[in-house]
Amino acid sequence: MNFTRPTLILDKKKCLDNIRFMADKVRRHHLQFRPHFKTHQSAQAGEWFRASGVSRITVSFVKMAEYFAAHNWKDITIAFPFNIRETDTLNRLAAENTINIVAESEETLNFLGENLKHSVNIFIKIDTGYHRTGIPAAKKEEIARVAGSVKQPLVFKGFLAHAGHSYHASSKDEILTVHGETMEQLRRLKEEFQSGYPDILLSLGDTPCCTLADDFAGMDEIRPGNFVFYDVYQYHLGVCESEQIAIALACPVVAKHRERNEIIVHGGAVHLSKDFITRGDGSKSFGLAVELNQESWGKPLKDTYVKSLSQEHGVLKAAADTFEKFQVGDVIGILPVHSCLTADAMKGYVTFDGKAIEHLEGVGNFY
Amino acid sequence: MNFTRPTLILDKKKCLDNIRFMADKVRRHHLQFRPHFKTHQSAQAGEWFRASGVSRITVSFVKMAEYFAAHNWKDITIAFPFNIRETDTLNRLAAENTINIVAESEETLNFLGENLKHSVNIFIKIDTGYHRTGIPAAKKEEIARVAGSVKQPLVFKGFLAHAGHSYHASSKDEILTVHGETMEQLRRLKEEFQSGYPDILLSLGDTPCCTLADDFAGMDEIRPGNFVFYDVYQYHLGVCESEQIAIALACPVVAKHRERNEIIVHGGAVHLSKDFITRGDGSKSFGLAVELNQESWGKPLKDTYVKSLSQEHGVLKAAADTFEKFQVGDVIGILPVHSCLTADAMKGYVTFDGKAIEHLEGVGNFY
Repeated sequence: MNFTRPTLILDKKKCLDNIRFMADKVRRHHLQFRPHFKTHQSAQAGEWFRASGVSRITVSFVKMAEYFAAHNWKDITIAFPFNIRETDTLNRLAAENTINIVAESEETLNFLGENLKHSVNIFIKIDTGYHRTGIPAAKKEEIARVAGSVKQPLVFKGFLAHAGHSYHASSKDEILTVHGETMEQLRRLKEEFQSGYPDILLSLGDTPCCTLADDFAGMDEIRPGNFVFYDVYQYHLGVCESEQIAIALACPVVAKHRERNEIIVHGGAVHLSKDFITRGDGSKSFGLAVELNQESWGKPLKDTYVKSLSQEHGVLKAAADTFEKFQVGDVIGILPVHSCLTADAMKGYVTFDGKAIEHLEGVGNFY
Repeated sequence: MNFTRPTLILDKKKCLDNIRFMADKVRRHHLQFRPHFKTHQSAQAGEWFRASGVSRITVSFVKMAEYFAAHNWKDITIAFPFNIRETDTLNRLAAENTINIVAESEETLNFLGENLKHSVNIFIKIDTGYHRTGIPAAKKEEIARVAGSVKQPLVFKGFLAHAGHSYHASSKDEILTVHGETMEQLRRLKEEFQSGYPDILLSLGDTPCCTLADDFAGMDEIRPGNFVFYDVYQYHLGVCESEQIAIALACPVVAKHRERNEIIVHGGAVHLSKDFITRGDGSKSFGLAVELNQESWGKPLKDTYVKSLSQEHGVLKAAADTFEKFQVGDVIGILPVHSCLTADAMKGYVTFDGKAIEHLEGVGNFY
């Protein structure tokens, strides 16, 4: 590859290893695997999951459900509080597929009950501590009221949680505590509602918990997504090794500033997104640098990181040896802080064998 | 419009007013206007500039130059340290257009001197205090060395600065101080080099300085870009009024949480980008909420802001009256913190008369 412009490389081997790791774990725990496809958003990466036995998937919005339905996925959970302005599309999708949606309000369920023509499965979103969406697990009456508003052609299936507060944990133990508390809340809810709803399913899924935990007692399915690529954020959290990060942005070096040991690359906020981690000294890091080779990339270059991003510029703070190694016109790899957002920004990948891997919004741009 | 999904609305009237404001100022100061098109990245918005007398433009990367050249722009400055891996494309562009590029190193200029077949104008990037790219204005010898490495078919034209540190100012006075210091450094450089290079041009441009300043003594051209839309960041800086912000993201309301006065919308990091401002109480704001009407939107809703963004979710902290006003299924407008990144993320706009406005990367997706 020429890498004349910022290009997102997908290391297929690392990606397949990540898929295998999670698929093996799911099998060991007799869970149903419903991976979230919002990270890769790619028909081809979807086929890699299919080859490992996956037949049910999760997406984060209706258009993504349409895309994967068009690529022959027949059982799709749209894990986002359902947007009733998209009811027509939901009707079309549900006519030919098993569609599971997430709701947390009577208004939404009443509207769908009146306007849907095809059967759609409902999961009630439970807030187990993240406090973004969902009904707090302790609010049994509200949950009962919402479950009671599920009317034909809707079918109440169970409870769904996303323990997103695992991303704010500061240690592996804390992540496992979040996981344990989430499971406990879901199991108690199931017990509470079992008499009225004997077939309740419990679904959870976030990459930190699903990667680190080895206890899934009582759970029916998991829905992690980010693990397909992992990223610097997960590495920083202690969830993955840097070697597991499966995408890197190839960035041309355009300038060097010796007095500051800074390397300027074409590769900015529109490519990587503006998510960052906070380093030990309080400064921000928007990515780690790696040296690219013909088949993959090496470990993160020591004491080298992306200290700031503008729209198109990336500024790398470089250790002395890294500063000397890279010249204007060379290409340097950046491991992203948040792979979901980087993949979404780039809208396409290239593998080391030069194949374009598409993304929902476009086919890989590479040069 | 139905706004079934997150959709970026462009208020054409506000946008034309913003263009007129800057074009009038440029005329008053007898400057050359070379607006930066990286904010809108749109052929149609480009025509609105052309109608106000603009014939020269600025872009931030080579592909954007190709796009606008294809839309009949004949004099383009690529205001980014030139990426020598794109020399072939530069050659093609320079064969038919006046292309001005920015360089700051002998390596880049030597490479281009050997590999270019067509005349290309060079501006040396001067660092006037932002410390992102460029040669510090005080380093006269280094500047002389770089200017001396400009060889045919390159033509040395002058000095270019971007006083991006104006974005970190905490008052209008501080922005004007940054502007004054930048101009002073450029004027001194011109004096210094005038004997060897009698026709040196001075170019600067950032929206805060160009909006607020009324002194451009000795400058030849300005290159602001963001002012075409402005945004919450500029409003927060005191650079514009909220009424001047010309784009808003239409977001469907998908859930409400009364106990926290929070409204959940479909509209997240992949739509707005993750840039934020820090509010008076230290909390982050990723955007302000407005009520949409048939022709535009109102003032920002009091005490209501986007407190967090996930990939697809936006969480609005709402004042009590705003919380009551919006129901699940309604649409709320979000004024973005950084319009350049939001426009780039959305890759297309719609105007209130229902017209799709294209963006370099795609035509407006609206629903």
